[in-house]
Amino acid sequence: MRITVWNENVHETRGDDVVRELYPEGIHGQIAKGLAPHFADDGDVIRTAVLQDDEHGLTEQVLDETDVLLWWGHIAHDQVSDEVVERVHRRVLAGMGLLVMHSGHYSKIFTRITGSTASLLWRSEGERELVWTIERTHPIAAGIPNPIVIPRQEMYGEPFDIPVPDELVFVSSFTGGEVFRSGVTYTRGLGRIFYFSPGDQEYPVYHQAEILQVLANGIRWAAPRLPREDLTAEHRPTGWFAP
Amino acid sequence: MRITVWNENVHETRGDDVVRELYPEGIHGQIAKGLAPHFADDGDVIRTAVLQDDEHGLTEQVLDETDVLLWWGHIAHDQVSDEVVERVHRRVLAGMGLLVMHSGHYSKIFTRITGSTASLLWRSEGERELVWTIERTHPIAAGIPNPIVIPRQEMYGEPFDIPVPDELVFVSSFTGGEVFRSGVTYTRGLGRIFYFSPGDQEYPVYHQAEILQVLANGIRWAAPRLPREDLTAEHRPTGWFAP
Amino acid sequence: MRITVWNENVHETRGDDVVRELYPEGIHGQIAKGLAPHFADDGDVIRTAVLQDDEHGLTEQVLDETDVLLWWGHIAHDQVSDEVVERVHRRVLAGMGLLVMHSGHYSKIFTRITGSTASLLWRSEGERELVWTIERTHPIAAGIPNPIVIPRQEMYGEPFDIPVPDELVFVSSFTGGEVFRSGVTYTRGLGRIFYFSPGDQEYPVYHQAEILQVLANGIRWAAPRLPREDLTAEHRPTGWFAP
Amino acid sequence: MRITVWNENVHETRGDDVVRELYPEGIHGQIAKGLAPHFADDGDVIRTAVLQDDEHGLTEQVLDETDVLLWWGHIAHDQVSDEVVERVHRRVLAGMGLLVMHSGHYSKIFTRITGSTASLLWRSEGERELVWTIERTHPIAAGIPNPIVIPRQEMYGEPFDIPVPDELVFVSSFTGGEVFRSGVTYTRGLGRIFYFSPGDQEYPVYHQAEILQVLANGIRWAAPRLPREDLTAEHRPTGWFAP
Repeated sequence: MRITVWNENVHETRGDDVVRELYPEGIHGQIAKGLAPHFADDGDVIRTAVLQDDEHGLTEQVLDETDVLLWWGHIAHDQVSDEVVERVHRRVLAGMGLLVMHSGHYSKIFTRITGSTASLLWRSEGERELVWTIERTHPIAAGIPNPIVIPRQEMYGEPFDIPVPDELVFVSSFTGGEVFRSGVTYTRGLGRIFYFSPGDQEYPVYHQAEILQVLANGIRWAAPRLPREDLTAEHRPTGWFAP
Repeated sequence: MRITVWNENVHETRGDDVVRELYPEGIHGQIAKGLAPHFADDGDVIRTAVLQDDEHGLTEQVLDETDVLLWWGHIAHDQVSDEVVERVHRRVLAGMGLLVMHSGHYSKIFTRITGSTASLLWRSEGERELVWTIERTHPIAAGIPNPIVIPRQEMYGEPFDIPVPDELVFVSSFTGGEVFRSGVTYTRGLGRIFYFSPGDQEYPVYHQAEILQVLANGIRWAAPRLPREDLTAEHRPTGWFAP
Repeated sequence: MRITVWNENVHETRGDDVVRELYPEGIHGQIAKGLAPHFADDGDVIRTAVLQDDEHGLTEQVLDETDVLLWWGHIAHDQVSDEVVERVHRRVLAGMGLLVMHSGHYSKIFTRITGSTASLLWRSEGERELVWTIERTHPIAAGIPNPIVIPRQEMYGEPFDIPVPDELVFVSSFTGGEVFRSGVTYTRGLGRIFYFSPGDQEYPVYHQAEILQVLANGIRWAAPRLPREDLTAEHRPTGWFAP
Repeated sequence: MRITVWNENVHETRGDDVVRELYPEGIHGQIAKGLAPHFADDGDVIRTAVLQDDEHGLTEQVLDETDVLLWWGHIAHDQVSDEVVERVHRRVLAGMGLLVMHSGHYSKIFTRITGSTASLLWRSEGERELVWTIERTHPIAAGIPNPIVIPRQEMYGEPFDIPVPDELVFVSSFTGGEVFRSGVTYTRGLGRIFYFSPGDQEYPVYHQAEILQVLANGIRWAAPRLPREDLTAEHRPTGWFAP
């Protein structure tokens, strides 16, 4: 498994003390570290890439060598170049897996894939989030306690403007009473996409073992199942099938 | 619109003071009364039927004259005769609409239709339920506040063992933190089914205008769209379509 | 109902004799004419717009006055300005209905909405298409024969690279043996989208009464159910719900 | 993997020469033989059971030792005891996988699970069936040619009265022009169900390698992912989650 964890890496670098304390190696660094024990086989590769890298670290070559891409962004969606978004989108359609996390719902790549606004309710007051499993037999829910208790989190609430998901894996509640479809899957082309909402920069969510387990499960689920294929190619069968 | 509201009518008749005070005319009576202003056109008929009636009040003739059947049951599911359940099921398949309410999830007709156990978490401690709309453009959600606030209710929680719904209209949260798919739709044969969980016998839920509005919307949505048809009939086309 | 039929209008205007003979008033003109008897109430408006119009005929004002937009394009998708596509997309998200027809699967608006390549098999050899109803109680299938027989059509075949549809209304077969999900629905934001594949420029498909009936049904289904709303607005509830 | 192939075994035993010639060891025998190379690991067990066995060969013990059950029935659905059907259903809900084949759509277990009539069009004139893959990344479609060509088959056509499937894996066309959702999945309780229509007793369908590959894929997909669990148990959490 070849995993690339992408992060806009802006909170961390512009002097936000809370974030720097929680994520001294960046959110991407913490996620990569947390995934490492889950992908410790020979051949498993976990790398990171950030907005500030050349081509945001997502060159053709990096994407060629990525089975599943994780995406974390929040306040710099606009700074991601359309060319890179288009490139990522093309790879997803050809079969690369994609995990979009938390405020990545508003990223260019997620709204490009869903065709929706991805708007939602939100409130950052350190509420308790409970992540309930809806599809118990889904591989992404394997080994996950029901519910996951996240002591302090930003609230994300319905209405969440997304297309009807292919699968509804998790639904969350918050202290304040809101609910949220916190784990949903889609397929686009040959690519599998998993959106998972827990994970704000102001709370230590990516230090929580269950959350890392969900991400690891999501990566295995989203991994390509077929050789990459450019689905945009023309297909013009000329013969008819014999009756 | 010809509506039949069915109720097992056991809490009301065996001396449960709380229920009798909340529903002096029975849960069925209150629902029928609450629906009346919504279906006041000539030709609209709202009738009630209870377990204690001959054939539970669901004779062939009554069902012939029913467009949409509402079902409330709780502690007497076992007393409903298999023959009547089979009869109701056959009508649903032929196009009759069905609304299953609250503890009706464990009714013979609902488990017969879903093929599942319908088990769930529950706790009756008078929690506040918030009913959030997920599909904003669904006709069942028309005119419904988001959320509906039910001051005191029995908690129903996930995991709710039902098939993946055709449409997920509402999701609820409870004071205690649980979530529940509280409004879901299915189609079986030509019949449309809406399950709506709010509505316990110990709380005045069916006195709440928004709840009655949901039921009225559900009835309109579930009403037959085609002439009734026995789908079990054989269909053996013999010719082939010309190429 | 205020309907706008959009057509790229290129086959018709650049001297394609077959198309001109089949559609002397343009494909848009024929569709508008065919829909007229279905929308003959006071207040119903059917207008047309073409690529060659200023802003492709889809100004802010025209879209303000459009409940449902029909889209036909084939060889000039690239000539549709991104600004107009963005404008149409925004209106769909705010609640405008959209019908995408035939080769419109490759249009910018459809791929923008679906996030997919929309690729498929195709072969234009005048095959018979049979359009089978899958969801019999769907309003789009109301009054439609099962199957619709289209004597001569272009073949569109699976794999059709689209997201899993919300509803699968029709599936077609072709003389050569291919199958195709020919009628599918989606929701994006508050907007409802219906893709319907029959309708090539080289065959008189839009002269066929059943096809026009499907379009009329689709328009009624896709019509806005709520006041238009900009879902991109921020929603930051600050209070919590009382327990 | 512990697999049990169940067959009513009536065509084979009552002197139907065509069937006996095609399936001298019974349809169950041929399927078991065809699956053997796919499940040749230590611990893999393939057994068969037939209607004529004591308890139809589906004792509590056999089901305890079955991960995935395959079901073939046609003219003797009525002879299957309700008790055995109930027993199989309970196991499916607790997590056992189930593959229902061909005319098994009318079996008691399939209609019990789906709550529908399962009626369809049919015609047995030896038509060519083409089985097209709809969900290319689905594990059941792995390694399957697109389409599978079955030279001679019974036609099964839409409308097929089943609930909207969780996943639509295959759609077939027939020489005569009909289409059919030939590969569909459901979940009930913790059990996964795959219905696959190819496979009539009068044609050598189960001798075809691609068909056996689909069944092998289906078995792997339907295998239990969690320990068996009786979902009918009561769950009454009493505490609330701390805010």
